[in-house]
Amino acid sequence: MRIGIIGAGQLGRMMALSGIPLGLEFTMYDRSATVPGAAVAKIVTGAFDDSKKLERFARSVDVVTVDWENVPVASARAIAKIRPVWPPPRALEVAQDRLFEKHLFQRLGMRVAPFAAVDSEADLARAITRLGVPGILKTRRLGYDGKGQARVRQARDAGDAWARLRGQSLIYERFVNFSREVSLVAVRDRAGSVRNYPLAENEHEQGILAVTRAPFTSLRLQLAAQRNHHRLFMALGYVGVLCVEYFVERGRLVANEMAPRVHNSGHWSIEGAETSQFENHVRAIAGLPLGDTRPRGHSVMVNLIGRMPVAEKLLATAGMHLHDYGKAPRPGRKLGHVTFVTSKRALRDRVARQLRRRLIS
Amino acid sequence: MRIGIIGAGQLGRMMALSGIPLGLEFTMYDRSATVPGAAVAKIVTGAFDDSKKLERFARSVDVVTVDWENVPVASARAIAKIRPVWPPPRALEVAQDRLFEKHLFQRLGMRVAPFAAVDSEADLARAITRLGVPGILKTRRLGYDGKGQARVRQARDAGDAWARLRGQSLIYERFVNFSREVSLVAVRDRAGSVRNYPLAENEHEQGILAVTRAPFTSLRLQLAAQRNHHRLFMALGYVGVLCVEYFVERGRLVANEMAPRVHNSGHWSIEGAETSQFENHVRAIAGLPLGDTRPRGHSVMVNLIGRMPVAEKLLATAGMHLHDYGKAPRPGRKLGHVTFVTSKRALRDRVARQLRRRLIS
Repeated sequence: MRIGIIGAGQLGRMMALSGIPLGLEFTMYDRSATVPGAAVAKIVTGAFDDSKKLERFARSVDVVTVDWENVPVASARAIAKIRPVWPPPRALEVAQDRLFEKHLFQRLGMRVAPFAAVDSEADLARAITRLGVPGILKTRRLGYDGKGQARVRQARDAGDAWARLRGQSLIYERFVNFSREVSLVAVRDRAGSVRNYPLAENEHEQGILAVTRAPFTSLRLQLAAQRNHHRLFMALGYVGVLCVEYFVERGRLVANEMAPRVHNSGHWSIEGAETSQFENHVRAIAGLPLGDTRPRGHSVMVNLIGRMPVAEKLLATAGMHLHDYGKAPRPGRKLGHVTFVTSKRALRDRVARQLRRRLIS
Repeated sequence: MRIGIIGAGQLGRMMALSGIPLGLEFTMYDRSATVPGAAVAKIVTGAFDDSKKLERFARSVDVVTVDWENVPVASARAIAKIRPVWPPPRALEVAQDRLFEKHLFQRLGMRVAPFAAVDSEADLARAITRLGVPGILKTRRLGYDGKGQARVRQARDAGDAWARLRGQSLIYERFVNFSREVSLVAVRDRAGSVRNYPLAENEHEQGILAVTRAPFTSLRLQLAAQRNHHRLFMALGYVGVLCVEYFVERGRLVANEMAPRVHNSGHWSIEGAETSQFENHVRAIAGLPLGDTRPRGHSVMVNLIGRMPVAEKLLATAGMHLHDYGKAPRPGRKLGHVTFVTSKRALRDRVARQLRRRLIS
């Protein structure tokens, strides 16, 4: 079976690395041929809104998925007329707009931070009065890794925040006073079967995911997150891997955002779970049964951001696994990650602290 | 770093799948471009004795290895003048000739079945008289998966065996009355560090490896096999993964043959060990530190020979991992393998029996 992926970054690369052993063939569509996916797939280049080229691409494969949630919805819908597209275009549409996303979360009974749409400076003033400070003004679309955000600590910061982000559709969210951040990665297959990974605990640095530890064991929060995922799967007619990121505030989950794709906070599953999120995503879209999501121990994943450490040194630690995405270094860019898995939770936490010191400056 | 592999079969494919995450780039040289490696590497086509083409290939990479031990030694030696070749050509030379191999084993104090070189019908008669029956007449070169062998049950079978194999250099080996077959896979890096996998127990069907279970736990045999490996590593100046297959006869190891490469009896290590034999081979030849070889549980690997089972059915068993090499079906051809890993040995053995019944006819 031929899998087409729109976007050929590290996520597409890791999907192909896990799907090739299943006998699947991969073709990826991206703007350039110098992409992480090029090592493991045929690359077709073109613009993401070039519907003619995308249609030709779709006809050359059996099923289409994405490694990037900002594929234009119109393009995804056009392709869906030719070949199955998973996740469904509706899921991309919702995930591409923070306002749509929040509305869906609310409609499904998921707790979210108080929020308001902001399209003018007056909207922002009203939102701050109604919801209070501190808060964050965010672009509704195309924000990632902390980009497109401005903090509003006090009401008088509103002018600066507005000046920075004006000209785009915005959303104001009251700040969540969270004790930790967790995420759930789960997968649904074409027949409707669902497998959940254990919750993962995430630490961000300057808006970019830095460290993930899994499993984060709280039966109560695990079940609450699974319930939310179940509602999202049903509401969206979802197939594939879906991630929802949460704040934990006074012991309760507050949904922050969802990613309709494999997610950085699930990378630990390559070594840390019986079946990785990447393999389960391709199994789901290829119509194969889902694999076991049980953890193999206690995992820590640390992102390599901006510059690559010396592989010789990193790999000298027993049990350390390196994933180099083959990307050119650039400040703030995710270049790779490392994962360490052990049966001992305390050892995992010690290694997490060491890696953090060594790799995150 | 650019890795060149001579041969682009399933072994090269699995090396690349494990080395790409380390940031390594792969180019493979084979007679055809329709090869399992094509999904994960640039393919250069040419004859294995075309020294001009092989030299050009070698210059395009940083280090060269093989996925096939029968690469002409002259070609390997020519390439070694241009780029490092691991394992060293001397190891290929020894492994390509059962007589050289047996002589080396003997010289290093390893137990082998009584044997004699056979170049004439008179040689065969003398060998049978001196060593006894039952025995096996084998071609010295290019035998694999039971090919190029004739059983000599009684002295009067000699004529038939000779008629079948005459015209090639042969070796007569007395049959070893073994209770089981085991193999050791171990790896040596450029700095001389060695990591041993646990012994694996192998079952063959019609000369082809069918089932491997690992670890096979016998501290005494493990240490004996490691001692032999150590001597081979030293004698050959070896770098990379080396496998030695043994018969166990009255509780003692009798060396059968060696493979100077990753080996089918080590495929379980992809899911069943902390670091796979494929990753450790590429780490070794790339000058990276070796990874932990500890088993993650009790593994069983079953080869998929001649025809592929239905993936949907296979993968419906939790914990089942499929490796489809992307090859066209043909009787007796290795098309893929499946691996199952569990913390429970008895469950592993039960699954091994089920898989055997289902997959091996």
